[in-house]
Amino acid sequence: MALIAILPGDGIGPEVTAEAVRVLDALSLDLTFEEALVGGAAYHATGHPLPAETLDLAKRADAILFGAVGDPSCDALERSLRPEQAILGLRKELALFANLRPAKLFPGLEDASALKPEVAAAIDMVIVRELNGDVYFGEKGFRTNAAGNREGYDVMSYDEAEVLRIAHVGFRTAQKRGGKLCSVDKANVLETSQLWRDVVIEVSALYPDVALTHMYVDNAAMQLVRNPGQFDVIVTGNLFGDILSDQASMCAGSIGMLPSASLDANGKGLYEPIHGSAPDIAGQGKANPCATILSAAMLLRHSLGLDAAADRIEAAVGKALTDGARTADLGGSLSTRAMGDAVLAALEGL
Amino acid sequence: MALIAILPGDGIGPEVTAEAVRVLDALSLDLTFEEALVGGAAYHATGHPLPAETLDLAKRADAILFGAVGDPSCDALERSLRPEQAILGLRKELALFANLRPAKLFPGLEDASALKPEVAAAIDMVIVRELNGDVYFGEKGFRTNAAGNREGYDVMSYDEAEVLRIAHVGFRTAQKRGGKLCSVDKANVLETSQLWRDVVIEVSALYPDVALTHMYVDNAAMQLVRNPGQFDVIVTGNLFGDILSDQASMCAGSIGMLPSASLDANGKGLYEPIHGSAPDIAGQGKANPCATILSAAMLLRHSLGLDAAADRIEAAVGKALTDGARTADLGGSLSTRAMGDAVLAALEGL
Ligand SMILES: CC(C)[C@H](C(=O)O)[C@@H](O)C(=O)O
Ligand SMILES: CC(C)[C@H](C(=O)O)[C@@H](O)C(=O)O
Repeated sequence: MALIAILPGDGIGPEVTAEAVRVLDALSLDLTFEEALVGGAAYHATGHPLPAETLDLAKRADAILFGAVGDPSCDALERSLRPEQAILGLRKELALFANLRPAKLFPGLEDASALKPEVAAAIDMVIVRELNGDVYFGEKGFRTNAAGNREGYDVMSYDEAEVLRIAHVGFRTAQKRGGKLCSVDKANVLETSQLWRDVVIEVSALYPDVALTHMYVDNAAMQLVRNPGQFDVIVTGNLFGDILSDQASMCAGSIGMLPSASLDANGKGLYEPIHGSAPDIAGQGKANPCATILSAAMLLRHSLGLDAAADRIEAAVGKALTDGARTADLGGSLSTRAMGDAVLAALEGL
Repeated sequence: MALIAILPGDGIGPEVTAEAVRVLDALSLDLTFEEALVGGAAYHATGHPLPAETLDLAKRADAILFGAVGDPSCDALERSLRPEQAILGLRKELALFANLRPAKLFPGLEDASALKPEVAAAIDMVIVRELNGDVYFGEKGFRTNAAGNREGYDVMSYDEAEVLRIAHVGFRTAQKRGGKLCSVDKANVLETSQLWRDVVIEVSALYPDVALTHMYVDNAAMQLVRNPGQFDVIVTGNLFGDILSDQASMCAGSIGMLPSASLDANGKGLYEPIHGSAPDIAGQGKANPCATILSAAMLLRHSLGLDAAADRIEAAVGKALTDGARTADLGGSLSTRAMGDAVLAALEGL
């Protein structure tokens, strides 16, 4: 019996998470679900975006299904109380250092991308983003500098152990796919990147079957537009990964379709759609639940070893799309619930 | 009599700069040119990428026309001797803090973009990138951290004076265009960004005619793909500007067509194409000189106040394109020199 923590969060989080839970339920696996507040919803109820009991549940659980956090009514709060701190806190407290973000174009959704159909159709990559270090978690604050001016600062850094473990994830991910790994950095300017590059090159000796290349982040942002089909696996740091993975998802045209996994060293993970809380459409039943449903599939595969069940969910989402099911973001008119129904119906037929 | 420093640099730099100088010459303006080595070319000849006499020329000159730096044979050198340090050194020594990067699709080049023609055709923006601060110029190095591991680090920071002056450039640029300014940061994670956002909001009180919005950098990277036509002027820091401006140029499909200006507080500037040294095609006469020719036009406008001459150059490039002149990057077969000839011919007819 596996315990799944359900953390719906803010905005459209509860709506999309509910559909993913329905899909998991329909598979009759031996799962129990326990739900807790997170983000702005938790702040408003308890005064903190990541209450102790939510963190405790996340620690006890075998895996976590996460909706989204982000709530404009919290914008003026001090940083430590803002909704985003909940996801940053979970990543750090649970040592979820490896973020896997597949980006691919779903058959039938060629028109959803702003890229030319032939460019978009070639997209099939995984971005491996480091999630516990970089400028996200270094010393930061405000100070008065030598010129007497108020200054904001954030220290960017990576140490060799941090780069080593994420590099291994990158190489292993490439081994299971097309055997190509592109490491993205800004080594022409940053010492953090120089260390990153040195360690990635060291680790590459252990993976002679993987073809390693290096790319500066500005060039990577260009190449993801020009010819995204050239990438198999990208490994990069927390900040560059944040930017490039969102860009890659949008190139695939399906921000409402893409899941992600954030894993610790033992395969425990937090699974969430790559989209945010979308406050503008929250509560209206318009959101596409597929990214969260596909996150649930990743959960079964990566944390519970239930590959067959994961495959079934992914096939069901594919079939629902082929059958023409479309929410508003895909140019259709189905509600969140109706899209969930379509996936459930497809699941029955498989 | 204005003195123009010509710094051709590495790779395709000399080829494209030569065409821009031919175009400037043809205008019979009162200009003198003085040339100096920079980047890998300077390192190989003198042992330093930015020799004292090059820096001296840049300081004496009224404006600088710059080709490109970057030379793979210098990759293993210590950081302070690498070609990139020349451009970073010039930006810092001359206090060139404001980088203006227009990105627009040239009529007739719709097919060059990987974006759908209707999405690409709407691109017409200027990215205003801060160039003297951020993680580029903070304290950086290697150290052993508390865990006993080797660590690379770079301090990111902005102070209020730095943000203030670039914010003014952003607002003034927006005033002269569509009146819309989007400030890009990562204020949900970085204190540097929080200070940036606070100061930009303070400055906005002086520009009631400009509509200011804020966007997180990950979202901006998505929006530049989804709907780049929504942007008029973007103002952002050095690192985010590096990434987003290259991405925006590629969306416009014309990495060989786009110029840039890097200005100090008095309008003195360094002008360079946004593309790099492209060592793979260097010396083959294949490079597109238009980005450098258009950089020369920006030089006339921003540093010498010669707007009419600048307009003529821009019109000539447009006419050459309309007449069908195309280098390889645009799907044609003209050499660098032949493309320069086409622009010169168009200039005569204007
Ligand atoms: C909400 C925010 C702190 C977060 C990040 O920057 O990591 C988000 O953009 C993401 O990518 O999950
Ligand atoms: C060459 C490099 C140091 C430079 C930068 O990062 O600023 C380049 O990418 C640019 O954008 O001009």
